[in-house]
Amino acid sequence: MSLRIDTKRLLADLAELGQIGLGSDGGITRPALSREDADARHYVIKRLREAGLEIRHDQVGNLRARRPGTHDLPSVMTGSHLDSVPSGGKLDGPLGVVGAIAAVEALAGIATRRPIEVAVFVGEEGSRFPRGTIGSAALSGHVPVDRILALRDSDGVTYGEALANYGDVGPALAVPAEPGSIHAFVELHVEQGGVLEAARLPIGVVTAIHGLVQRRVRFLGDANHAGATPMNLRHDALLAAASWALGIEETARRLGVLGTVGKLEVAPGGKNIIPGLVEAVCDLRAPTAHLLTKLDEEVVWLLGDAAHPRGVTVENVLLQRVEPGPMHEGPIDAVERAARSLGLGCMRLPSGAIHDALHLAECTASTMIFVPSIGGKSHCPTEDTAPEHLEAGCLVLAETLRLLADS
Amino acid sequence: MSLRIDTKRLLADLAELGQIGLGSDGGITRPALSREDADARHYVIKRLREAGLEIRHDQVGNLRARRPGTHDLPSVMTGSHLDSVPSGGKLDGPLGVVGAIAAVEALAGIATRRPIEVAVFVGEEGSRFPRGTIGSAALSGHVPVDRILALRDSDGVTYGEALANYGDVGPALAVPAEPGSIHAFVELHVEQGGVLEAARLPIGVVTAIHGLVQRRVRFLGDANHAGATPMNLRHDALLAAASWALGIEETARRLGVLGTVGKLEVAPGGKNIIPGLVEAVCDLRAPTAHLLTKLDEEVVWLLGDAAHPRGVTVENVLLQRVEPGPMHEGPIDAVERAARSLGLGCMRLPSGAIHDALHLAECTASTMIFVPSIGGKSHCPTEDTAPEHLEAGCLVLAETLRLLADS
Repeated sequence: MSLRIDTKRLLADLAELGQIGLGSDGGITRPALSREDADARHYVIKRLREAGLEIRHDQVGNLRARRPGTHDLPSVMTGSHLDSVPSGGKLDGPLGVVGAIAAVEALAGIATRRPIEVAVFVGEEGSRFPRGTIGSAALSGHVPVDRILALRDSDGVTYGEALANYGDVGPALAVPAEPGSIHAFVELHVEQGGVLEAARLPIGVVTAIHGLVQRRVRFLGDANHAGATPMNLRHDALLAAASWALGIEETARRLGVLGTVGKLEVAPGGKNIIPGLVEAVCDLRAPTAHLLTKLDEEVVWLLGDAAHPRGVTVENVLLQRVEPGPMHEGPIDAVERAARSLGLGCMRLPSGAIHDALHLAECTASTMIFVPSIGGKSHCPTEDTAPEHLEAGCLVLAETLRLLADS
Repeated sequence: MSLRIDTKRLLADLAELGQIGLGSDGGITRPALSREDADARHYVIKRLREAGLEIRHDQVGNLRARRPGTHDLPSVMTGSHLDSVPSGGKLDGPLGVVGAIAAVEALAGIATRRPIEVAVFVGEEGSRFPRGTIGSAALSGHVPVDRILALRDSDGVTYGEALANYGDVGPALAVPAEPGSIHAFVELHVEQGGVLEAARLPIGVVTAIHGLVQRRVRFLGDANHAGATPMNLRHDALLAAASWALGIEETARRLGVLGTVGKLEVAPGGKNIIPGLVEAVCDLRAPTAHLLTKLDEEVVWLLGDAAHPRGVTVENVLLQRVEPGPMHEGPIDAVERAARSLGLGCMRLPSGAIHDALHLAECTASTMIFVPSIGGKSHCPTEDTAPEHLEAGCLVLAETLRLLADS
């Protein structure tokens, strides 16, 4: 029996979610556990109910919606997240949620041996609390639940306090998930890079996820008058930070990895005041633990080179280190078979970005299905994917779920 | 008759004003025509009345307080401003206002041929409206009054609208001042650099004020995912801005002038998003028009070098160009004679910072009296001057006013 995706409904779901947290620049801002995040989740719960799933939530706010199997076996899980970066796009996260609903609806009337679960993970982006992939790290047991509940945002609000206002009612499932209770995990996501577009292929299957180091650095200089302070008597925090950012670029290119300074704030920020303080965050990615460590060490070393000649001091704090994670051959093979049976071209590729699948891979056989990002753009208002590629991704997901749930 | 400064009162006045707009970091934030600016002015008006001066205000909100002379002659003016940069110090501006009051009080009972006026100029810092030295530029006729009233702050509020809520009542004096109505102008101010401290001298007299160019530059790159976008496919606006800021530093050092990027804002500002937009302001200073133009041209040229290799585009807007201004030998000589008669060491020096005296010099013979800044620091919470230097500055101001008002 051939599967059919209700693409009109899929696009309507994405459009509805794309209104929640929409800013004047066309970008979406839905921090974890915010009002906007809760509104998006409310919409998704309504859709999961329409799809006939039984809905539960867990101790850290992950949503787990279940379709029974014919046998009482460990489930096959799919899903993604609803939170966003500041001024992000409409697909990063939501596609893996509403795409999962579309896939489950495509499987209506088709019995599977195993239950199928749709998960919505909380706080994947790390744009509110000081780490990302919060919900999936809790589910996998990567981070203990008490440490997650104690995370604080920049206003001093703990994750636990924010969760209490999130709207979940009724008893919560325990985290981490019981060992062996999840048979396999597949996450549908936009690629966020330009590899599939360049290869002209609709489907990618992920072989590994790059590791990540993020450091917050404070450059402590000396705020002073821009007109009255000779160049050789300055301690300009911004120039130190600028030199560091350019050094990260050079190092990342040389090592063939990725390095970015995405957040940088200058104080006091007056037009005629020499910057006395800069707070910046670097984001470093590499495919192996060895390369990640080498990159991180060089970036910390660069701090001294950038700051010392200017009499600027630095403080640096490791925000997080996430080890690179290989995906699993079982579900990778299932995705390839699914794509082949549907006549859709598919390639293997690594993911430069971190996803919830990284943590799910710690407790079950996992992979991801990528669809092309137009212009390779993501984490921005113009993030988009052609409708036929969205449909292809959902079809491959549905077929993959069928294969895995009958295995 | 030897003059005496009530230093206790002077320090109390500075301490009182230092409470108005005080932030948690110890810095003072009093934007032009703000509630805090109005509160500071209210305090000063009370003190001017106690000193027996007749108070008027003009069309743009400058305060002019007058002590009569024995003859109906053009007045000798002194004064400064009460507004501040964001998180600035307690002396930049206020010293020239309460120091003027202290000097006039020191002259109580001493008749002078000419009237003496204490002026408080509005909007010297340019931290709210898109230019500084607003009040003095209006008084000198440098900028027509209608253009000043139409200036808009970043919230879209015009100067005229803000002025209507500033608290001035009664008829306003016209600006510009009637030609020839001000005989001379002397402004007491902290040096804001480290020259007097290094020379171990209590008094500086200003020979010229450096010119200024400020440009606002927008670097337009491409916001994208920091993990999924290869280094060679990026258009990182922050790296372009960083390269430009470092180029300004190199150019300013090479030309022996001053260049600063004090304000720089990154959007969207997510930890894992490549910066798509940076807005920065550069502040360029030089002692001659020729050098200022050369510096400005090189800084604009650098924009292309910084942005083009990264596929980043730039927009740049000239916010202001202020021509360098020479001070006048008459009042410079008076300051030197005053310091000598009081036994206080004095040196001539240029001002790297712009002051209201720059515009007063366009309509009358002008100079400034500088006192040392501890550690050369200014425009920051730790801006300070030793009490004996504050007293010395007020004494020299009082004696200079007596000399000029009897000339």
